[in-house]
Amino acid sequence: MLVVMHPSATSAEISRVVEAVEEMGYEARPMPGAQRTAIGIVGNDGRIDSSRIAALAGVAQVIHVTQPYKQVSREWRAESTIVTIAPGVSFGGNDVPIIAGPCSVESETQILEAAHAVRDAGGTALRGGAFKPRSSPYSFQGLGKQGLELLALARRESGLPIVTEAMDEEGAHLVAEVADCIQIGARNMQNYSLLKCVGRIGKPVLLKRGMAATIADLLLSAEYVLSEGNDQVILCERGVRTFDPSARNMFDLTAIPTVHELSHLPIVGDPSHGTGVRDKVTPMARAALAAGADGIIVEMHPHPDSALSDGAQSLYPAQLRALIDELRAVATAIGRRVTPVAKGAHQSSDNALQTGTSGPAAGKH
Amino acid sequence: MLVVMHPSATSAEISRVVEAVEEMGYEARPMPGAQRTAIGIVGNDGRIDSSRIAALAGVAQVIHVTQPYKQVSREWRAESTIVTIAPGVSFGGNDVPIIAGPCSVESETQILEAAHAVRDAGGTALRGGAFKPRSSPYSFQGLGKQGLELLALARRESGLPIVTEAMDEEGAHLVAEVADCIQIGARNMQNYSLLKCVGRIGKPVLLKRGMAATIADLLLSAEYVLSEGNDQVILCERGVRTFDPSARNMFDLTAIPTVHELSHLPIVGDPSHGTGVRDKVTPMARAALAAGADGIIVEMHPHPDSALSDGAQSLYPAQLRALIDELRAVATAIGRRVTPVAKGAHQSSDNALQTGTSGPAAGKH
Amino acid sequence: MLVVMHPSATSAEISRVVEAVEEMGYEARPMPGAQRTAIGIVGNDGRIDSSRIAALAGVAQVIHVTQPYKQVSREWRAESTIVTIAPGVSFGGNDVPIIAGPCSVESETQILEAAHAVRDAGGTALRGGAFKPRSSPYSFQGLGKQGLELLALARRESGLPIVTEAMDEEGAHLVAEVADCIQIGARNMQNYSLLKCVGRIGKPVLLKRGMAATIADLLLSAEYVLSEGNDQVILCERGVRTFDPSARNMFDLTAIPTVHELSHLPIVGDPSHGTGVRDKVTPMARAALAAGADGIIVEMHPHPDSALSDGAQSLYPAQLRALIDELRAVATAIGRRVTPVAKGAHQSSDNALQTGTSGPAAGKH
Amino acid sequence: MLVVMHPSATSAEISRVVEAVEEMGYEARPMPGAQRTAIGIVGNDGRIDSSRIAALAGVAQVIHVTQPYKQVSREWRAESTIVTIAPGVSFGGNDVPIIAGPCSVESETQILEAAHAVRDAGGTALRGGAFKPRSSPYSFQGLGKQGLELLALARRESGLPIVTEAMDEEGAHLVAEVADCIQIGARNMQNYSLLKCVGRIGKPVLLKRGMAATIADLLLSAEYVLSEGNDQVILCERGVRTFDPSARNMFDLTAIPTVHELSHLPIVGDPSHGTGVRDKVTPMARAALAAGADGIIVEMHPHPDSALSDGAQSLYPAQLRALIDELRAVATAIGRRVTPVAKGAHQSSDNALQTGTSGPAAGKH
Repeated sequence: MLVVMHPSATSAEISRVVEAVEEMGYEARPMPGAQRTAIGIVGNDGRIDSSRIAALAGVAQVIHVTQPYKQVSREWRAESTIVTIAPGVSFGGNDVPIIAGPCSVESETQILEAAHAVRDAGGTALRGGAFKPRSSPYSFQGLGKQGLELLALARRESGLPIVTEAMDEEGAHLVAEVADCIQIGARNMQNYSLLKCVGRIGKPVLLKRGMAATIADLLLSAEYVLSEGNDQVILCERGVRTFDPSARNMFDLTAIPTVHELSHLPIVGDPSHGTGVRDKVTPMARAALAAGADGIIVEMHPHPDSALSDGAQSLYPAQLRALIDELRAVATAIGRRVTPVAKGAHQSSDNALQTGTSGPAAGKH
Repeated sequence: MLVVMHPSATSAEISRVVEAVEEMGYEARPMPGAQRTAIGIVGNDGRIDSSRIAALAGVAQVIHVTQPYKQVSREWRAESTIVTIAPGVSFGGNDVPIIAGPCSVESETQILEAAHAVRDAGGTALRGGAFKPRSSPYSFQGLGKQGLELLALARRESGLPIVTEAMDEEGAHLVAEVADCIQIGARNMQNYSLLKCVGRIGKPVLLKRGMAATIADLLLSAEYVLSEGNDQVILCERGVRTFDPSARNMFDLTAIPTVHELSHLPIVGDPSHGTGVRDKVTPMARAALAAGADGIIVEMHPHPDSALSDGAQSLYPAQLRALIDELRAVATAIGRRVTPVAKGAHQSSDNALQTGTSGPAAGKH
Repeated sequence: MLVVMHPSATSAEISRVVEAVEEMGYEARPMPGAQRTAIGIVGNDGRIDSSRIAALAGVAQVIHVTQPYKQVSREWRAESTIVTIAPGVSFGGNDVPIIAGPCSVESETQILEAAHAVRDAGGTALRGGAFKPRSSPYSFQGLGKQGLELLALARRESGLPIVTEAMDEEGAHLVAEVADCIQIGARNMQNYSLLKCVGRIGKPVLLKRGMAATIADLLLSAEYVLSEGNDQVILCERGVRTFDPSARNMFDLTAIPTVHELSHLPIVGDPSHGTGVRDKVTPMARAALAAGADGIIVEMHPHPDSALSDGAQSLYPAQLRALIDELRAVATAIGRRVTPVAKGAHQSSDNALQTGTSGPAAGKH
Repeated sequence: MLVVMHPSATSAEISRVVEAVEEMGYEARPMPGAQRTAIGIVGNDGRIDSSRIAALAGVAQVIHVTQPYKQVSREWRAESTIVTIAPGVSFGGNDVPIIAGPCSVESETQILEAAHAVRDAGGTALRGGAFKPRSSPYSFQGLGKQGLELLALARRESGLPIVTEAMDEEGAHLVAEVADCIQIGARNMQNYSLLKCVGRIGKPVLLKRGMAATIADLLLSAEYVLSEGNDQVILCERGVRTFDPSARNMFDLTAIPTVHELSHLPIVGDPSHGTGVRDKVTPMARAALAAGADGIIVEMHPHPDSALSDGAQSLYPAQLRALIDELRAVATAIGRRVTPVAKGAHQSSDNALQTGTSGPAAGKH
């Protein structure tokens, strides 16, 4: 940390800052300059509350040199963390999984159709919300527990691992029983009670960037999960809010190489929320992959026209298949590989079919 | 709602939109234009999921004419809602209460000193956090339940009503036992589970605007509380995030007349978080009042130099007194009045003094 | 300037940075820390190109301690600069002038009516554009030279000094012949050729903040004018662009005390562009004054319904009169004074009336 | 255009709006709704000044349905425009040119070394500034005319076409004598006098997006050039300003498919300004290409450590070569091709060499 004094600061004010730093247990190194004095703080472990220093007389500015996060940083762990949500489905290595599915679980038919469409298109995991955070209390809020049961069914039917959102602590425990990866949505990125809770649960977490979160904020939120002993965190860039209404959000792909520089955690790109329009999903999924994303998560609905939410940004099944083909080509161009469909997935599905519990789309296979 | 078709939309596509609108139970009125057709939707009660329409072929854009919120709107209730958190302490009428106090409760001595300083300066209510949402898991997180007990003590001692934050459902029930008004912080503005919870509890709520929340988002979050049957909601402008690092946040005072136009709910201004620097608090508190704020909430610490959080933006007690004097003058200039210190407050405090439980600052009175 | 090295930087990399700093003629002071080394640069006069240092191997970050501007800073000149655009019309002292008038000059009748309305309402100066920067090439672009002639006429008629915009160097010379103060619009805030040009012309300049300009950017643009020898610069806060569509811009009133802290130059507030809606102009003009603005600039049109531009944010003449009355009360509350209408202004106007050149509104006087 | 009335608007107010629309020569179609009346305007050619309508009593909101730009739109011209700046160097077709070079021209040696490095790496055109818009008046402002002469020399030597910036009208005429494409920088995107000037000059224009420009703003600025009869405009995404300090700008790659949807003009990506850090340039150049960019423009300096500007974001020559190799692979994956080095370029260069005017790097060829 560097404390910059006002040009007019007195030597008594400078001494007071030095004292305060020392009272906090650190070493202070005054550095007089041509125009003003700066005071370096040595031994800072990132836990100093700078506000206390900033409040002292004569202080112009406090500059953080050390990052406020620890366990999420590359400096803490140089090697990239690989998060495995199911056998063969890992984020952070050379393979790039594709998570796809509807915004929300609407019915057994819908989610089973969706799951089969994802698997047929070459997707790696199934997404779909049972608990939906909606801006309006009058919008469809998800099927809740029943939605989780349908996801469990879709998992048995398709063999695909499940990624689904939890909105509060009670829901997190319910989600953890069914899901392979618990999603924390953008609106809850700074819901620290919830972050600590999923940290304690210990299942893999997909943490979405908040609408106005800096990369440092995102990493600090992940730190809440790691500080509870759970390092299985996948970050997710899903667009942030800016002045331009031409897209639902501004999809900040530079976040991907920035996270890779600062942290050992994997990061995936969500072009559906990142852009908000179906036409933009394909080019921006390609772009996310080219920028280095460790996975892609997209919305696909078997019948977008009748989706209860996010229809406008959901791909048709055929578009998902075409997208995954394009992603395979781009991945090859940059020396990576789209995660191949697991044998296990098919077998699991086949078993499900044999037991006769399959849904309406089962006949396709 | 208005559906704008692409210039190249076919009449089949237009018919399909009309059909979809009618299936949803509304009336569709196509309006062919020089370059493209628009389709008006009549009978919209604000609950249509536009995404479903936006997903149809040939649709260029869906424009919302009706606001998505209902009960919070001026159209729903023309008269301003007055929220009373304690006898003589009301928000939304002609009087303007001043809420002041430290960022967090640190000790018995600190909170009692703070409470007396607030009352002596002419403040109307005491703020102070027992549960603190902090960006870093390593920052001071508040005293929790013990902090609530200290707030209860400060209330008895000073007679000032208490405003304090809840971060999760469990905490909201604890806070409700002690506080006169439950604060929902900026980071939790879209924590819908928490909003529903405080809606059910029924105590007055101070709802802070999120860091990237539009006014419409803020009103929609308030709608969650009202939709549970609790209309005692005070909104709070506390600055939003922008590109300019010259202040901690950008304090959006236009939010105040905008909320007054769109909603019947009162809105207060928080210049401490709005600016992040002590020097800016006084001019910006005056500005908030001049813009029409129904209350001012500021951070004041008896000893900002040793504050455990937000020291740099906390006023000294003497500064709070000077600020309230200035606010009285500005209020008079615009035909309002800073809420006078309640007789009851003094009596309550005096009673407290007689019972001998007073804190270190008691001798001052 | 502080150069922060990567934790993994080698001592050879550290030495290379020290060398580079010394080659540039400054002193380098390495400061080894617990996690990484920082290198202070002493003797920096604000002209170092940090990019050159940032490009060296092992450098993590370059932090600016010294501000990049000089002559505009309070450190350069502690006393506030007072900019006088006409006798009795000064910005930066205790008095607060009110500049009012239409967005653009439309006709002789319109501008003379406007000028008389401004004077009658108690305004101090007349604004009105002859050259209009419009987002669309198909919008009304102003009357050009003819508009300037009409402004000269309005000046003779009303005695009010004129503030009008220049968009390019040729226009700046034309404007300088007529105007008392040359306005540089938000879109041209970083048109450095134009800034240098008005610096050389030497007339007072009203410099509007750009739509995404930080306070530091605004001050750097003013520095271009001062560096040509012209210190008669009035800054203007007029709102910046953010994510919230609820107002045309976000009116950043904290810019006012921030500029007062960093610079000796005066700053005025423009609530018309700051909000974009007539209803919000009055409360936000009051707020700007309460925040410490050294002047207020508002749009007023004699007939807003038929304005060729910005009708929605233009006050009616009666609203301007009411606004100035409110501003007088707020100014008194904070120990300032709205600039009184100059005797000279009336006389000048009366003389004009005697010569028989008065416009349609002349009969009012 | 759609005029939405307040729910409380009277029928007299509705009639007044209808009248005003008809006075302006358009047809008004009132559409009474459940809660409020909306009035459609038919025959709108995009030139209506909505502010005039918005100013009328009872009007709640004016919604634009027709885009304000014309000639730049896909609706005006369905086929993509191909802009050819030199033989074999076209933007907007299947081939993707790579423009590379230093931020500014610093010396004969530097620019010739740079030109040869660009050509050797497989680049298609040379960039380099002779006139530099710098935030501070004390930063290096470019070599001016001498810089243009050096660019002309580099062009003869290397055979590469030249892209260089003009900052004002006088400069635009000078640049036009030397350059194959005139760049308009982000800060001048709304300098309408300059846009009209380069519109009249008629040479290809590279128009960079402003720091807070929406896509609609960018297209409107291009419309200024087209409205003067010059349709040879290449748009450029170079990052916009947001709240996150983790990168110099936020590189908005969704702008690329959005421009392709709305306009027939080509768009290129500038990852150097888009990110501001050398490490991020390669992944983000790949991402821009994968998103559909019609060209890539990057900063490369023969010796970034001693660059007079933008050293931190300039690639080393070897990095440029590696980048272009990666871009070739990604282009192939998406069915496009990096523009191959023209035979003519080499010949031109060889001729130059034979005349003995070659610079220090000439021996390499």
